[in-house]
Amino acid sequence: MSPESTADLLATRIRDTVTRYLDAIASGGSADIVALYADDATVEDPAGTEPKTGRDQIAAFYAALDNVRNTTELLTVRVAGNVAAFHFRVVTETGDKTVTIDPIDVMTFDDQARITSMRAIWAPADVSSSG
Amino acid sequence: MSPESTADLLATRIRDTVTRYLDAIASGGSADIVALYADDATVEDPAGTEPKTGRDQIAAFYAALDNVRNTTELLTVRVAGNVAAFHFRVVTETGDKTVTIDPIDVMTFDDQARITSMRAIWAPADVSSSG
Repeated sequence: MSPESTADLLATRIRDTVTRYLDAIASGGSADIVALYADDATVEDPAGTEPKTGRDQIAAFYAALDNVRNTTELLTVRVAGNVAAFHFRVVTETGDKTVTIDPIDVMTFDDQARITSMRAIWAPADVSSSG
Repeated sequence: MSPESTADLLATRIRDTVTRYLDAIASGGSADIVALYADDATVEDPAGTEPKTGRDQIAAFYAALDNVRNTTELLTVRVAGNVAAFHFRVVTETGDKTVTIDPIDVMTFDDQARITSMRAIWAPADVSSSG
């Protein structure tokens, strides 16, 4: 394949990984989320905090999602090279409260479109709560 | 100051740098843009291409803006730690054509809120042209 069509194919696969990531957050299956990561990936959520490194730490981080109900919506996604940046919304029902957060996540990917790094860009002011 | 208020102050200054960056793109002053960068900064636009490194290369990159009319609009910005990600729109009038692009840029900053790295996340499909 030409370099250009290889790049297009990777971009398509990266978009698919982003979609599956948001689907997995919605379905609350942390194992499904972790499966999208490369073995030695890093997760920094929010950016500026100590990164989680490797599958075990990343699995422990996402395990918090296993008992909550979420809906997710992809608002904007951009892909260039092996990088994706996407603005999305997560709405979480926690018993009597509804919590909404809409970060911009920045991810890098390997050539099989597995996530090699994730940085979530958000601050407490980007979280709203009702109910 | 407490670590928290120091972080809040940096976030405020980072948002100000992002605003001034878009203002400088609109006014078409590449010197104003370059002044927002740290000395040894890198610019990768779009992500996946060879980075421009240092003031001279960065100035040469933005010099293309010196003779065009742009309007810019900040659509969404998120800041965490020393990172900002922002979705914005640039509309360029080039004689008989209007070109619109709306990337997500990811920037890191030093402790004086000067840009230390920029990666622009966009693809040709994110550019539209009319006129």
